[in-house]
Amino acid sequence: MTVVLAVPGNELHARELGARIDAPVVIPEVRQFPDGELYVRVEGELSGHDVILVGSLRGNGDSFLRIAFLAGTVRELGARRVGLVAPYLAYLRQDDRFRPGEGVTARYFGKLMSQVVDWLVTVDPHLHRLDSLEHIYSIPTVIARAAPAIARYITASVEHPVLIGPDAESVQWVSAVAAGCGAPFQILEKTRRGDRDVSITPPDGKWNGHTPVVIDDIVSTGKTMIEATRQLRAAGSSAPLCIAIHAVFADALEAELMSAGARAIITCDTVPHATNQICIADALAEAVRSRIS
Amino acid sequence: MTVVLAVPGNELHARELGARIDAPVVIPEVRQFPDGELYVRVEGELSGHDVILVGSLRGNGDSFLRIAFLAGTVRELGARRVGLVAPYLAYLRQDDRFRPGEGVTARYFGKLMSQVVDWLVTVDPHLHRLDSLEHIYSIPTVIARAAPAIARYITASVEHPVLIGPDAESVQWVSAVAAGCGAPFQILEKTRRGDRDVSITPPDGKWNGHTPVVIDDIVSTGKTMIEATRQLRAAGSSAPLCIAIHAVFADALEAELMSAGARAIITCDTVPHATNQICIADALAEAVRSRIS
Repeated sequence: MTVVLAVPGNELHARELGARIDAPVVIPEVRQFPDGELYVRVEGELSGHDVILVGSLRGNGDSFLRIAFLAGTVRELGARRVGLVAPYLAYLRQDDRFRPGEGVTARYFGKLMSQVVDWLVTVDPHLHRLDSLEHIYSIPTVIARAAPAIARYITASVEHPVLIGPDAESVQWVSAVAAGCGAPFQILEKTRRGDRDVSITPPDGKWNGHTPVVIDDIVSTGKTMIEATRQLRAAGSSAPLCIAIHAVFADALEAELMSAGARAIITCDTVPHATNQICIADALAEAVRSRIS
Repeated sequence: MTVVLAVPGNELHARELGARIDAPVVIPEVRQFPDGELYVRVEGELSGHDVILVGSLRGNGDSFLRIAFLAGTVRELGARRVGLVAPYLAYLRQDDRFRPGEGVTARYFGKLMSQVVDWLVTVDPHLHRLDSLEHIYSIPTVIARAAPAIARYITASVEHPVLIGPDAESVQWVSAVAAGCGAPFQILEKTRRGDRDVSITPPDGKWNGHTPVVIDDIVSTGKTMIEATRQLRAAGSSAPLCIAIHAVFADALEAELMSAGARAIITCDTVPHATNQICIADALAEAVRSRIS
């Protein structure tokens, strides 16, 4: 039997997954002692079962420790295999050494995680220079794609869409969504001068009568999406709809995007946020089925 | 050659250790990206060298990830062996399963850490039911003892001390300090009703003319030390000096201790805190020498 275990804060995804793969969902007890140390407890019969932890991984170490401790606990309680469904997977940014002495955290994090769980499912990981998670994870990984759900959303909600990728890296997400909803797309060119400082070339001015939909995988500071929105408005386009897969939001991004001239910002629900509008549960469940069947 | 690498926040201990073992100290660059992910960079020639990371481990996952990432970085830069000096070592509390389904986090944390570094030095780990770190760490470990430094402090600062252990677990620290400063000691009996709720038996009333010194290893909520202080005052003793090894402080402990009738609370410097008065650098350096010689 397969049991779904919800890492705190991921109960919704756990229930959505449990319903789709017909597996019971267990909510563990996870709390902090007064000095900040974690306490975990998992009730229920797990002996001989496959256990699927559902929990996004963020940049802070607590999300890693919670998963490591829950995995250790269910293994000692007799779980046969322990998989991880991480709708958002952190530590993919630093996948190479750009200056002498830099730590390649993507490798170290992947190695740690590969010692904790037996397989990993995630949604559209932010791969730049690496073409596969296999370079940093030694366990089997399956990537669920948000593009079909985003394409369905655009088809149902936007008239005459033209998809805009704000930089070269976004072409992988934008082209997949474009194929799914039969819309044209254009990729802009970005120059990055720092964590929060980017410039973007203006779009071609040929999309009159279309609604631009700017699509990117991660919206962290949002500078890339804000600059793309500004360039679209400066080129005379109507207010763009902005779509991000992962709502990894810092700062007052929404207000900045709106004042730059966006129509709205919406996201997939990989990272819980008020902007979540696109449910990726079907894609996650399909990816999980390939691991447990 | 041996190089000492200071995990951020542990620069003082790193410099104290470097001076005592005649090793250069490197201060790495550790910062956060806007979304919270860590960036690490270590400058300097490390190829073929032994590297000693100096960094206390706390309950939050960030202290673990910083050490894991720095260890990964220096290994890729060619370090031969990577040791960890953790003046305070977290995750020793839950060393057994007391209720069904509980995670034995001491084991999981020890296993993770044993995959990250090659050896470990720490000061007086909070071992209850385990008699050695070997049960949870698969790497060589060396325990530095704070008792000699505490005994020297008491000998120099307290007239006619009587050492008081607030509960049975404290006997290991209290008896060692008593031996070091030739003072009598008494162990009280504690009953714990919750994380923040304890009761303690009154002391014998035979210590007139002595200054009680309450000694414990960890002062988290401080309830144990506060209750011991109350019982001492209620039994007619003079205001006790309270000494903790690790200043793992929660809440407004100092004010509570003073209002319970303590003379002062002082600590060893394993966890940076305003109450630090006893330097354990010599004991740390001696323990490290046994690993690198």
